[in-house]
Amino acid sequence: MTRTSLKDFNCSLAQAAEVIGDKWTLLILREAFFGTASFSDFRKNLGVAKTVLSARLQSLVDHGVLERAPTRPGVDRHTYRLTAAGRDFFPALVTLMQWSDKWVFGPGNEPLCVMDKKTRSAVQHVGVQARDGHFLTPRETTFGPGPGANEETLEAFASLARGNRDS
Amino acid sequence: MTRTSLKDFNCSLAQAAEVIGDKWTLLILREAFFGTASFSDFRKNLGVAKTVLSARLQSLVDHGVLERAPTRPGVDRHTYRLTAAGRDFFPALVTLMQWSDKWVFGPGNEPLCVMDKKTRSAVQHVGVQARDGHFLTPRETTFGPGPGANEETLEAFASLARGNRDS
Repeated sequence: MTRTSLKDFNCSLAQAAEVIGDKWTLLILREAFFGTASFSDFRKNLGVAKTVLSARLQSLVDHGVLERAPTRPGVDRHTYRLTAAGRDFFPALVTLMQWSDKWVFGPGNEPLCVMDKKTRSAVQHVGVQARDGHFLTPRETTFGPGPGANEETLEAFASLARGNRDS
Repeated sequence: MTRTSLKDFNCSLAQAAEVIGDKWTLLILREAFFGTASFSDFRKNLGVAKTVLSARLQSLVDHGVLERAPTRPGVDRHTYRLTAAGRDFFPALVTLMQWSDKWVFGPGNEPLCVMDKKTRSAVQHVGVQARDGHFLTPRETTFGPGPGANEETLEAFASLARGNRDS
């Protein structure tokens, strides 16, 4: 089967990609976390073409990540704010930032610093943790079907178990 | 200034977007973590068109996220493996998965489960933590210029301090 849309995938990552799998979308979210709210400020701060910005903002509204409200009643200008789902993208954005801080810019060359507001010290490096809090490498983890696995997902895991993995 | 390339940005998130800001790229990385290595297995498991897969794999190799090696000496077939930089994408992928587990599929409908291999219990929800380990909401954090901030970044922060934020 050749897929043309990610919507077919019974996969959380595919659905996240559907929402943010676009370069400008990530930066629009970044701006929203900085407090940017108006179309003109997004445009000024990102230097992105009007048509691109307009389409990406609309998509984020459609996916429930941003909400649009009129700037003032009766005025045809809007502000965009993160919804609860939008604010929940925060760990993903910080994790992606930390990835390129390490692998693209390198230690000592980080353009930005994310800090605990109260202590002004940098946040921890985000990682995947076991129940007891210790950090896990990919090799120390494994995947299994979740409660929402469909037949295709179950078959994929059966196939992995038959030896696709570590072959 | 209208930007057409993200490469101009002095921003870690823009650089991460340059690498993974594409829907299929995220899924190719997912497959790589599952242990998929050959072009034909990527193609079979994702159902993605050959030309798309070929371009995305090449881009991941160019960005140092995957490395390509001949399947056997003298054979024109290759396997793709995660580099250290590639393996370091793991927390970002898990964070994105958890986001749509929560907001797209919803509790109880998660297609996949990421587990600690040793205990077989699900990994923790990934979050941004302060030095002392407590989890921080976006509002409890703040951004500042890092050691690699360029003039444009410094000016952007000065402008934010002048009142773009919380306006």
